[in-house]
Amino acid sequence: MSTVDADGSKAAFPAITPPDEQARRQAVARHAQLTKPAGSLGRLEELGVWIASCQGLCPPRPFSRPRVVVFAGDHGVAAEGVSAYPSEVTGQMVANFLTGGAAVNVAATNAGATVRVVDIAVAGDTPELIASHKVRRGSGAVNREDALTEAETAAALAAGRAIADEEIDGGADLLIAGDMGIGNTTPASILIAALTDTEPVAVVGRGTGIDDAGWMRKTVVIRDALRRARPVASDPSALLRVAGGADLAAIAGFLAQAAVRRTPVLLDGLIVGAAALIAEELAPGARHWWVAAHRSAEPGHALVLNQLDLDPLLDLGLRLGEGSGALAALPLLTLATRVLTEMATFDEAGVTGTA
Amino acid sequence: MSTVDADGSKAAFPAITPPDEQARRQAVARHAQLTKPAGSLGRLEELGVWIASCQGLCPPRPFSRPRVVVFAGDHGVAAEGVSAYPSEVTGQMVANFLTGGAAVNVAATNAGATVRVVDIAVAGDTPELIASHKVRRGSGAVNREDALTEAETAAALAAGRAIADEEIDGGADLLIAGDMGIGNTTPASILIAALTDTEPVAVVGRGTGIDDAGWMRKTVVIRDALRRARPVASDPSALLRVAGGADLAAIAGFLAQAAVRRTPVLLDGLIVGAAALIAEELAPGARHWWVAAHRSAEPGHALVLNQLDLDPLLDLGLRLGEGSGALAALPLLTLATRVLTEMATFDEAGVTGTA
Repeated sequence: MSTVDADGSKAAFPAITPPDEQARRQAVARHAQLTKPAGSLGRLEELGVWIASCQGLCPPRPFSRPRVVVFAGDHGVAAEGVSAYPSEVTGQMVANFLTGGAAVNVAATNAGATVRVVDIAVAGDTPELIASHKVRRGSGAVNREDALTEAETAAALAAGRAIADEEIDGGADLLIAGDMGIGNTTPASILIAALTDTEPVAVVGRGTGIDDAGWMRKTVVIRDALRRARPVASDPSALLRVAGGADLAAIAGFLAQAAVRRTPVLLDGLIVGAAALIAEELAPGARHWWVAAHRSAEPGHALVLNQLDLDPLLDLGLRLGEGSGALAALPLLTLATRVLTEMATFDEAGVTGTA
Repeated sequence: MSTVDADGSKAAFPAITPPDEQARRQAVARHAQLTKPAGSLGRLEELGVWIASCQGLCPPRPFSRPRVVVFAGDHGVAAEGVSAYPSEVTGQMVANFLTGGAAVNVAATNAGATVRVVDIAVAGDTPELIASHKVRRGSGAVNREDALTEAETAAALAAGRAIADEEIDGGADLLIAGDMGIGNTTPASILIAALTDTEPVAVVGRGTGIDDAGWMRKTVVIRDALRRARPVASDPSALLRVAGGADLAAIAGFLAQAAVRRTPVLLDGLIVGAAALIAEELAPGARHWWVAAHRSAEPGHALVLNQLDLDPLLDLGLRLGEGSGALAALPLLTLATRVLTEMATFDEAGVTGTA
């Protein structure tokens, strides 16, 4: 299925074409005919226009299958004391996703989306059903070793692409990537620092809630990893290999492939944001197929949004991951679509226009 | 039903008691047990805690009947050229609400709420079904005459209270007030300027989308009305009579009565915000029963939020009214409730807590 080369070169992704201009214009014109003052729904109008242009259709279709894929993977750096939780929690939370007790399950139900969990690099065993794309058991401790081999990096990118293809072929018309992995804010922060040329202290956050001593350990790990990462910062595939991880690579492949397949994506927080930076390097222009759901409480996320020139819909201090922030914003996209689809025009309702 | 005195004095509203402290503490404690890092859902956790405290119950009940009431009324100032639309649009839009073609209908469906429309002071005739609380045909042009008589002011406040009672007695467990009325941003801005001691130019906005000449006319109208309003600014009922309007009075009565009845309210934008300032004067402490859904594009709305010390959930440049902004945020309240109700605890899911 995948066409990623072993060396993960950009050539592997076809050129990204932008969303449809004609549908965009039709949606702008339709907004002016609906029974509301022009522009009075602000950002919701822009969102509706974007959805119409992604679908190449005005009025757009209501989403029939919004879909969240949670990419689970462990990280060697968790052993360095960079997280408030032990690594075993990754597998435990995967089990929690499968029985429907986690935030992502509740948020998906609330927003009318469904959830898929994939084990990309969980340290322990997981049910066969979700392990078909597993690349390895945990990614390397990036402060002192590569996260992945070259072959693993290519395999992880290919896994993400294959998963996007599977979902889109299965009818998904809006994609969300989520993450689960104790320690994963550390490699995500490293990728962000490397790609935005930022110092460690400006990207490091509290993650799941580390104390001051943990924050200092995390900063040291990020500093050490950045010494290894900076020399390869201009090569996104090498950066994933040296200082990223299999889950981050898979999310990057997933986000880039969604753009290849002209399928809109609602971006979650820090982890997905770091992968989005990589995806935009691998497939320039992919970001036009994405909307940022929220601004995370993690300091590195603001750097991502700035670099990708994305304006988040929500700013509620979320820092959970799993795709939960994207799902919190999904009803805004649903509403933006329905406004264009369901509202009456001035003519239809017999309402007088502007004086 | 109503106990508002003819002079609309504060004594008419019983003292407002705050949301339940025990349920609040239980919700805070429950959040720490759910399978997510403590505090990682940010503002959503605070919202869930607030809902539990409003209901006096933890975990809270999912909302069974979220309800929007759109208060329609015309304003004499519309004849002064302060709006982009003619007054006849108020009645036309009321008809549009009844046939389900307006933004409020679409946003309510999207959020799982239902809509009621009430004619408080529409200039023309409306169906009998929605006119049972009608106070008069249009409120006075407040730049040169009182909006209402004393008796009409009391009747409008009483209408709002009665409507809140009807809805709560009918099972509504979350209330939203919406507005419809060509010209209504002008009296709303006057009330806000009077109650926050602000100059006209700092509160006047574009409303439905007036041009520069219209903006100047609107500023003059607001300036003239403020000369009449400032002397009575310390008496909320007199302020409604001199420079408000029947719809604004009814919304104020509705918001205050919701607090009396211990029912949470999701506040919309500028018009509802102006009425909320009045309601907080009439029933101090009522604001603890309200959450601000969004920050409107109208400059006066920021003054309202600041005065009431409310932090809005959304900031999307909305300026439509009708309750549409509150409905855009309603899924966040639904999600906040469901997190407390449906998520598994660490114990239930067998997930290890913090190290």
